[in-house]
Amino acid sequence: MAVRAAVAGASGYAGGEILRLLAGHPEIEIGTLTGNTNAGRRLGTLQPHLAPLAGRVLEETTAAALRGHDVVFLALPHGQSAAVAEELGDDVLVVDCGADFRLTDAAAWERFYDTPYAGSWPYGLPELPGARSALQGARRIAVPGCYPTAVSLALFPAYAAALAEPEAVIVAASGTSGAGKSLKPHLLGSEVMGSMSPYGVGGTHRHTPEIVQNLSGVAGEPVTVSFTPTLAPMPRGILATCTARARTGVTGEAVRAAYEKAFQDEPFVSLLPEGQWPATAAVYGSNQVLLQVAYDEAAARIVVVAAVDNLTKGTAGGAVQSMNIALGLPEELGLSTIGVAP
Amino acid sequence: MAVRAAVAGASGYAGGEILRLLAGHPEIEIGTLTGNTNAGRRLGTLQPHLAPLAGRVLEETTAAALRGHDVVFLALPHGQSAAVAEELGDDVLVVDCGADFRLTDAAAWERFYDTPYAGSWPYGLPELPGARSALQGARRIAVPGCYPTAVSLALFPAYAAALAEPEAVIVAASGTSGAGKSLKPHLLGSEVMGSMSPYGVGGTHRHTPEIVQNLSGVAGEPVTVSFTPTLAPMPRGILATCTARARTGVTGEAVRAAYEKAFQDEPFVSLLPEGQWPATAAVYGSNQVLLQVAYDEAAARIVVVAAVDNLTKGTAGGAVQSMNIALGLPEELGLSTIGVAP
Amino acid sequence: MAVRAAVAGASGYAGGEILRLLAGHPEIEIGTLTGNTNAGRRLGTLQPHLAPLAGRVLEETTAAALRGHDVVFLALPHGQSAAVAEELGDDVLVVDCGADFRLTDAAAWERFYDTPYAGSWPYGLPELPGARSALQGARRIAVPGCYPTAVSLALFPAYAAALAEPEAVIVAASGTSGAGKSLKPHLLGSEVMGSMSPYGVGGTHRHTPEIVQNLSGVAGEPVTVSFTPTLAPMPRGILATCTARARTGVTGEAVRAAYEKAFQDEPFVSLLPEGQWPATAAVYGSNQVLLQVAYDEAAARIVVVAAVDNLTKGTAGGAVQSMNIALGLPEELGLSTIGVAP
Amino acid sequence: MAVRAAVAGASGYAGGEILRLLAGHPEIEIGTLTGNTNAGRRLGTLQPHLAPLAGRVLEETTAAALRGHDVVFLALPHGQSAAVAEELGDDVLVVDCGADFRLTDAAAWERFYDTPYAGSWPYGLPELPGARSALQGARRIAVPGCYPTAVSLALFPAYAAALAEPEAVIVAASGTSGAGKSLKPHLLGSEVMGSMSPYGVGGTHRHTPEIVQNLSGVAGEPVTVSFTPTLAPMPRGILATCTARARTGVTGEAVRAAYEKAFQDEPFVSLLPEGQWPATAAVYGSNQVLLQVAYDEAAARIVVVAAVDNLTKGTAGGAVQSMNIALGLPEELGLSTIGVAP
Repeated sequence: MAVRAAVAGASGYAGGEILRLLAGHPEIEIGTLTGNTNAGRRLGTLQPHLAPLAGRVLEETTAAALRGHDVVFLALPHGQSAAVAEELGDDVLVVDCGADFRLTDAAAWERFYDTPYAGSWPYGLPELPGARSALQGARRIAVPGCYPTAVSLALFPAYAAALAEPEAVIVAASGTSGAGKSLKPHLLGSEVMGSMSPYGVGGTHRHTPEIVQNLSGVAGEPVTVSFTPTLAPMPRGILATCTARARTGVTGEAVRAAYEKAFQDEPFVSLLPEGQWPATAAVYGSNQVLLQVAYDEAAARIVVVAAVDNLTKGTAGGAVQSMNIALGLPEELGLSTIGVAP
Repeated sequence: MAVRAAVAGASGYAGGEILRLLAGHPEIEIGTLTGNTNAGRRLGTLQPHLAPLAGRVLEETTAAALRGHDVVFLALPHGQSAAVAEELGDDVLVVDCGADFRLTDAAAWERFYDTPYAGSWPYGLPELPGARSALQGARRIAVPGCYPTAVSLALFPAYAAALAEPEAVIVAASGTSGAGKSLKPHLLGSEVMGSMSPYGVGGTHRHTPEIVQNLSGVAGEPVTVSFTPTLAPMPRGILATCTARARTGVTGEAVRAAYEKAFQDEPFVSLLPEGQWPATAAVYGSNQVLLQVAYDEAAARIVVVAAVDNLTKGTAGGAVQSMNIALGLPEELGLSTIGVAP
Repeated sequence: MAVRAAVAGASGYAGGEILRLLAGHPEIEIGTLTGNTNAGRRLGTLQPHLAPLAGRVLEETTAAALRGHDVVFLALPHGQSAAVAEELGDDVLVVDCGADFRLTDAAAWERFYDTPYAGSWPYGLPELPGARSALQGARRIAVPGCYPTAVSLALFPAYAAALAEPEAVIVAASGTSGAGKSLKPHLLGSEVMGSMSPYGVGGTHRHTPEIVQNLSGVAGEPVTVSFTPTLAPMPRGILATCTARARTGVTGEAVRAAYEKAFQDEPFVSLLPEGQWPATAAVYGSNQVLLQVAYDEAAARIVVVAAVDNLTKGTAGGAVQSMNIALGLPEELGLSTIGVAP
Repeated sequence: MAVRAAVAGASGYAGGEILRLLAGHPEIEIGTLTGNTNAGRRLGTLQPHLAPLAGRVLEETTAAALRGHDVVFLALPHGQSAAVAEELGDDVLVVDCGADFRLTDAAAWERFYDTPYAGSWPYGLPELPGARSALQGARRIAVPGCYPTAVSLALFPAYAAALAEPEAVIVAASGTSGAGKSLKPHLLGSEVMGSMSPYGVGGTHRHTPEIVQNLSGVAGEPVTVSFTPTLAPMPRGILATCTARARTGVTGEAVRAAYEKAFQDEPFVSLLPEGQWPATAAVYGSNQVLLQVAYDEAAARIVVVAAVDNLTKGTAGGAVQSMNIALGLPEELGLSTIGVAP
């Protein structure tokens, strides 16, 4: 019997990607779709790429509309998930693609977000040490941010193997869909095409505390993180260049061995053969993470570059992967590791 | 028992897209992969988006290497398919993605191509009147060109319903993958980004006679075609703007009715609701064709705009769709009608 | 003594391009800048590419603010120019980059625009037969639309030489800046990158009557025009593919000769050597028009492709060129014929 | 009397940009143009954006062809400049846009380049402490690499003011023209559009020793540099995100003050108002550098982001600026600080 899934926020980019994946998932039946300002509109005018769902009409985002499903995906502006989740009952699997339940530190939440702290849920990054088992049977899942997905996968093996000092410097480039569908001047095509620009510089981006939380958790000590996100002229994809100062005595062989060990059994992470570096185009629409690591002896730094699709593995694919684990389905069900390229 | 498929030309864009689709096709087992200049290389370095096939090694393109499969896809430079196909036996399904067997008129072939005429095979555009039945049980398939796919679907209903004079003017924009992976200066990223340019202007593009053949076949009289292809700054997609002078007495209602009738049962063609126009992004990686039609009364022309993915429906998807028909499989098997957007 | 120029609408794309050109114009001193919703803001935050003007502050768009200049450029939403112009006095040169004074036919205006007809001014396309002399000494100039600039230059020689039937089919691709800075979902970078889409299909685009007016004026008889604009994934540039049915007896030589004659003395139009086709990248930021013509004998059509920068020759450059003529300055002053490429 | 300038390597991207600038330089007369594989070809087919120079024909790159000019710009593959320069005489100003004479350390040269060390010339980055005076009257100039230009300007003030530890981590994104016009598969438009990828990771990029040299020179002690370049889907532009560990006791105010002081009199560097971050589009075709600095207290790092046009300030503009200084012309002559945007 099919698992019935509802999607709240179906008109946005995250919601659209969730639907793209669910439409191809063999165990899922797509139920109610909601969208606030777009309630009453046909999905075909909002998400014309979802041809088979073109005739679906969005409802308003209310707990009543979302009830009666086995899984509810929330792709809402941050701060709106808690109220909806509370009314959905503990037997429903609620998968929150927003930030609301990612941080375990209330003080960090309050420094970076302008809404009350709502608590934390099992964290939907199964590759992180300890995370997969916490997702088994879970009925609440906090899907990681797109940048923390890329960055945490890129750096945790260095911390897990005690190869890196607790001091990371990260610069990541994201496609524009990471900024959502909101109508802001700097997101116009005329502005973004042919241009790169930074934002949230100097430790002010909201994904910073999430990265700190993940890396510190693995390192067993506080890791300081210098994180600079940049906007790249492409619709999708994150290229995260992640560096950490190497501990004394570290060798290139030890670094490579740590990364091979960390990902040898992971279906969605490929450590590339030595000498090959990842490109975001290769993971377009794929749930795969491509990464490569180098040890820069002169600078005494470990450098890892990870490519992910911010909407797939970075949001909707990670959500479906975690849902599969929570429901006891095969983890790879409905998820492709092949990108649409060129 | 799985159908075993080989792909000749697996390192190119068409070959890569065939592999992307075959890897998700439930009845196909991927066999030998070949590539001439790339023989001996790992697929992972040539097509990094095909992660699950990364370890495959290319062989040289010989009949010997391709024998022993149920289906052989040829994605070779034009003029090279005949020699390979001859040696493969009549029981093997050979799907040629090149131009070699598309034209029924030897004189037209010789005017536009520089190799001897090799004959014609059943034409892999099932939506064209009469084409689907000719594909059933076929053991040779000529996959249409990407432009002819878009243009023929856009205009044949007007000719089938006798609404248009035999005089079509077509301007189409293609993503750069349509030009292949050959190293030419005008295909460098620095040249194509931020730029549009025409090529093959004035009736000289090789897809012109194929368009003429398709439209004339449906019209029952020779159709003259002014066809101008342009190169657009995007990796994939064709937007074909196709116009034909309307016959006297034609109305907008008659035009719409003809298009609704033509595509009502087609799984891979969507006539959009009135007022909505297609964008190529909506069919990225999808086998769907999105189209819309208008009747411009002041200019007395029928205007149809079609969006297709040149590599999917325009090449590899059309090939798989036709293969499904030839093998008696469900026509939609292994093909998605959902694009990867944004 | 410098000519003092004011720019109304300085925060938009047209206004920004006018300022870019005026800042390099040796006879111009930039005076008041206005912008309605942006009044009071620094230009540096709105147009960061205009570094030397970063400290300028926008005023509200009123006749009072604009008075006291020798030239006033209006880059306002259509329908707003007449009221401002009326209050500026006949001695001031008013250059309107909007549509308000382009059409000579009140009925055509009313069919395509939703504001009262305001009359017509000398038309700022000096290359059009008769236009240059009408601009000499003018104190009001209607700058052409960007599409009509490209299309009229591409086709008028065919009509001036009586080579073409009064029946033109045009498909043009424009960069997104042609749609302005307005915040519309389909103009988001995530939507336009990697995508082509049509709009204003079927004779409904507002530039259609302007094209009809220009071509009919040269032809001496009504020309029907099928015009389809498309949005291309690039910030700037128009590639206009313009075709017209050839009159009986026309030859390729006659066509080429007509185009060579039409542009031999024009500083801003280059007919390319035979075999070379224009690309929009080559005119990025340039006032140059690159074009090429072919005669398609099989289809009996003349095909002309023109590349212009929609903001430069298509708007601000054409405006400055016409201003130069009106003021008796050298026509090429302050205008470059070199594009920024790649 | 005009200064006569020759350009060797006129068919490449650097050569084309030098010509674009020289064509607008009031004191320069463009003389001989050379290009090896393109000798004998018209410039119009190679650089169609340089319309006024379209009829020029390239000669072979020989000292004989280049003699008789006041200035010779060399835009040649590295390792080829020394032989040409030797034959040109000491009275000719030779401006080398290649790497050959940038490094003062022969051992560093030999580690990163595969040709014999040729020595070092005055370094064409006038903003670097001490550099401007060394350029006055010089007859040999080594134009900096594009990355070192952006990175050195971004970080030298922190070292000049002793605010930073000698440990920098830099990630920079470059447009594809930085990789030149060479025909490599990964530079095809189909590959680069919609994609970001790193290269030269782990301290292996040839610009690394040049960055080390510049920063160490200002710091007065060896600075270790972790430098990761990435390829961005745009034709031009570099966005360099440059971070350095702050010394104990550093404050945000001290950092800002150091940067304001460093650039207050520089015509080609704009420190943006606080809160505004640079975008590469704003310097498209401009010789301006836009930069902003932040102090990340939690991570104890100074973060500077600089945007430059890799072909203008990063190569040809920097070359012309240095030429102006060497010749005693006004430093800003022929150089624009306005970008072509959007």
